[in-house]
Amino acid sequence: MTNKLTLSLKEAIIKSGLRDGMTVSFHHHLRNGDYVLNMVMQEIADLGIKNLTVNASSLFDIHKPLCGHIQNGVVTTLMTNYMSAGIGKFISEGGMSNPVQFRTHGGRPSDIVSGNTPIDVAFIAAPASDAMGNCSGKYGKSACGSLGYAIPDAMNAGHVVVITDELVPYPLIDWSISEVYVDSVVKVDSIGNPAGIVSGTTKITRDPVGIEMAMRAADVIKASGLLKDGFSFQTGAGGASLAAAKFLRETMVREKIHGSFGLGGITGFLTEMLEDGCFESLMDVQCFDLKAVESIKNNPRHKEISALHYASPLAKSAVVDSLDVVILGATEIDTDFNVNVHTDSNGFIMGGSGGHSDTAAGAKLSIIIAPLSRARLPIVTDRVNCISTPGSTVDVLVTQKGTAVNPRRPELADRLKDAGVKVIDIHELKALAERISGKPERIRKGGRVVANVIYRDGTVIDRIYSVPTEIE
Amino acid sequence: MTNKLTLSLKEAIIKSGLRDGMTVSFHHHLRNGDYVLNMVMQEIADLGIKNLTVNASSLFDIHKPLCGHIQNGVVTTLMTNYMSAGIGKFISEGGMSNPVQFRTHGGRPSDIVSGNTPIDVAFIAAPASDAMGNCSGKYGKSACGSLGYAIPDAMNAGHVVVITDELVPYPLIDWSISEVYVDSVVKVDSIGNPAGIVSGTTKITRDPVGIEMAMRAADVIKASGLLKDGFSFQTGAGGASLAAAKFLRETMVREKIHGSFGLGGITGFLTEMLEDGCFESLMDVQCFDLKAVESIKNNPRHKEISALHYASPLAKSAVVDSLDVVILGATEIDTDFNVNVHTDSNGFIMGGSGGHSDTAAGAKLSIIIAPLSRARLPIVTDRVNCISTPGSTVDVLVTQKGTAVNPRRPELADRLKDAGVKVIDIHELKALAERISGKPERIRKGGRVVANVIYRDGTVIDRIYSVPTEIE
Repeated sequence: MTNKLTLSLKEAIIKSGLRDGMTVSFHHHLRNGDYVLNMVMQEIADLGIKNLTVNASSLFDIHKPLCGHIQNGVVTTLMTNYMSAGIGKFISEGGMSNPVQFRTHGGRPSDIVSGNTPIDVAFIAAPASDAMGNCSGKYGKSACGSLGYAIPDAMNAGHVVVITDELVPYPLIDWSISEVYVDSVVKVDSIGNPAGIVSGTTKITRDPVGIEMAMRAADVIKASGLLKDGFSFQTGAGGASLAAAKFLRETMVREKIHGSFGLGGITGFLTEMLEDGCFESLMDVQCFDLKAVESIKNNPRHKEISALHYASPLAKSAVVDSLDVVILGATEIDTDFNVNVHTDSNGFIMGGSGGHSDTAAGAKLSIIIAPLSRARLPIVTDRVNCISTPGSTVDVLVTQKGTAVNPRRPELADRLKDAGVKVIDIHELKALAERISGKPERIRKGGRVVANVIYRDGTVIDRIYSVPTEIE
Repeated sequence: MTNKLTLSLKEAIIKSGLRDGMTVSFHHHLRNGDYVLNMVMQEIADLGIKNLTVNASSLFDIHKPLCGHIQNGVVTTLMTNYMSAGIGKFISEGGMSNPVQFRTHGGRPSDIVSGNTPIDVAFIAAPASDAMGNCSGKYGKSACGSLGYAIPDAMNAGHVVVITDELVPYPLIDWSISEVYVDSVVKVDSIGNPAGIVSGTTKITRDPVGIEMAMRAADVIKASGLLKDGFSFQTGAGGASLAAAKFLRETMVREKIHGSFGLGGITGFLTEMLEDGCFESLMDVQCFDLKAVESIKNNPRHKEISALHYASPLAKSAVVDSLDVVILGATEIDTDFNVNVHTDSNGFIMGGSGGHSDTAAGAKLSIIIAPLSRARLPIVTDRVNCISTPGSTVDVLVTQKGTAVNPRRPELADRLKDAGVKVIDIHELKALAERISGKPERIRKGGRVVANVIYRDGTVIDRIYSVPTEIE
């Protein structure tokens, strides 16, 4: 064997043996800058292949051409963990016959490894690769950092095509995916738009409501008893979550608390906490900004992990199982603490679980941070329109007006009260939200199931219905 | 889940569900210092479990208590890639009913991954581990460096027990094997004797015959046209092979030749070549000495690889497929260039393929370095007593008296001659050997097959017979 270089993407697809009815997979580390999914799907469409299943770890609005392939019958089944609003609207309006299968970042690799959702051909967008397929996200003009979500795909697919815009000499020793799993390597001009791949910096909120919630969340963590040496933490890239991390950091630096690890999608802010000694290491399944990409490349204590290692319930253990605290968002939360992150207040799909329900299930303390209302609609309701994360795994809701503790955790409520945190019943928060924004009208559901929400254990936890059009 | 710590090895074995007739596996990175195989087999014997298959990547004389477990019926099938002379003698004298299954370092992981030789319980001797099973060979008092041969076992076994004498805080981020694959972790006082795990330094030969062969081997490599920028190289820890590396290094440094990678079992000498700029990286499946252990721990360009990545013919590619030159030894070589590394001149087992036939098959140029005779017995013969590596994959034989090129490689012979290398027909080398040491008597073979030599593609390439006792 000399090498695996294939002259064109078309040739690589033909070589893969892809045919009607098969499954192709993609990962989302290039986020809204990704060129690869569209490039591959267009070649597949041009080859006349139909009736495919697309299994993508997430989909962004740059992938809207996918809607055309759905309409043309090239794609008939869609599996993903997250979908941004542009594609979500298409699905919610009934653009696809088969319901979308939403999974979680931990459930998806479980279903791949177990053979429930076999992948015939995995397409790996790799910012750097050698000619044998040892590839990485850390190097090259389209560097995105971790390739964590792509690893289970590469390890389990029947055929693996690496697509790169930076071919490096063999061997690329700092591989995310090794040549052991790769069938062919295709060099293209560009795999993505750097401006869309990572944001320059993720920013801490300046909104007073966000700051208020962040302070309250930090107080909950301090009062929980978990903020001590060995502390581990995950938070998203949202402004209020980052602000909560900022308050934690100040406490940790001041009190010389040395945590064990930061987890998840990693922001520059967490890399600063690593450098400050707040954490011993970062476990990174996806980089959110340029600073995180630089850090994972240069700091050996900032480590790439696969989606399996991150959150899979099938793994013998995953990092989420050792996580102390996670701060998460919500588009809605109900009085049973069920959380919706799939649909907006009009019922349109605009998100997905990602790692939401995985980390909520794994962490010792899962905190939802959400304002009482958004755009004059209450966030705390009797019943969420879609259960993304079951209330049994959610411990605390923090709003700008008060903090509610899940009645399943009376010892936690006591602990918070003892520390001076004002704990309110979640029904009071709901009433308060309705006093401010009025009682929301129940969303009218259309007649069709457009998506199934598959919980990390493989059960369908909820169904998402079409949004009725004017005519319906 | 809090953690996977199990109070005792006995408890871990019981928890694993091990029962009669199953397969257990071990790796050999602790070499002749390993305490773990004996410790585990004794507990298993004490539990009364019988009729087991032991699949060990290699066996050393420290593992001689295994012979007792064979005699007692605890172990009835043995699979390994290498066996040192103490255990070899026991097998050759007919100590075991079932023939030993010898595989190669590449063939073994292939058969594990494909399910041909499934592992029920893998026991991983880990110099450092956290309580969830993220473990490494680089740290701890029993540090051995790479855990490359253990990785396929851990990834594919039904149940995985990590045995460590150094428990570190979670997460051990520089893992060789991640928690994803580990069921339980057992802390013991000591997993091995450091003096037996790695030698202090591996030494270059001072023997004039060895030096002569080394110079000739280096000349062959220089004449081959492969010694240029991008050059890749593997050699063993034998004195003459290291001396050949020394001559190569001098040339590379003088002529500013920048190679791509050094491969294999890694010695301190190769780490010096890395530091000198002779190689861009080292790909390490096993560390042979303390200097190599220090290097893999501290030098990010010195990289651990799994046995699958090293040499597996089932992998979509392995590093051996990209290897330029390998220097290998032989106990015998015949005029068809078949090589024996399994048995000694009396027919006793005292070795095994290890990576011999994998690298010979993969490398562009495979060189056997061997003296014409040892202990007054000719090394070059009409027919080796055991074919470990088929002559079709061997390119050159270098002896102290001349160099023979496989007739399958006429273009290589021409190239060497053009460069001034004196090329002799291998039959002349055989005649010369017999003139020096006399024609060897054919070894008398006993009536029983005591071992099958399974080539990397899964076919039985040769059988090893019992050595007749006086009575027979």
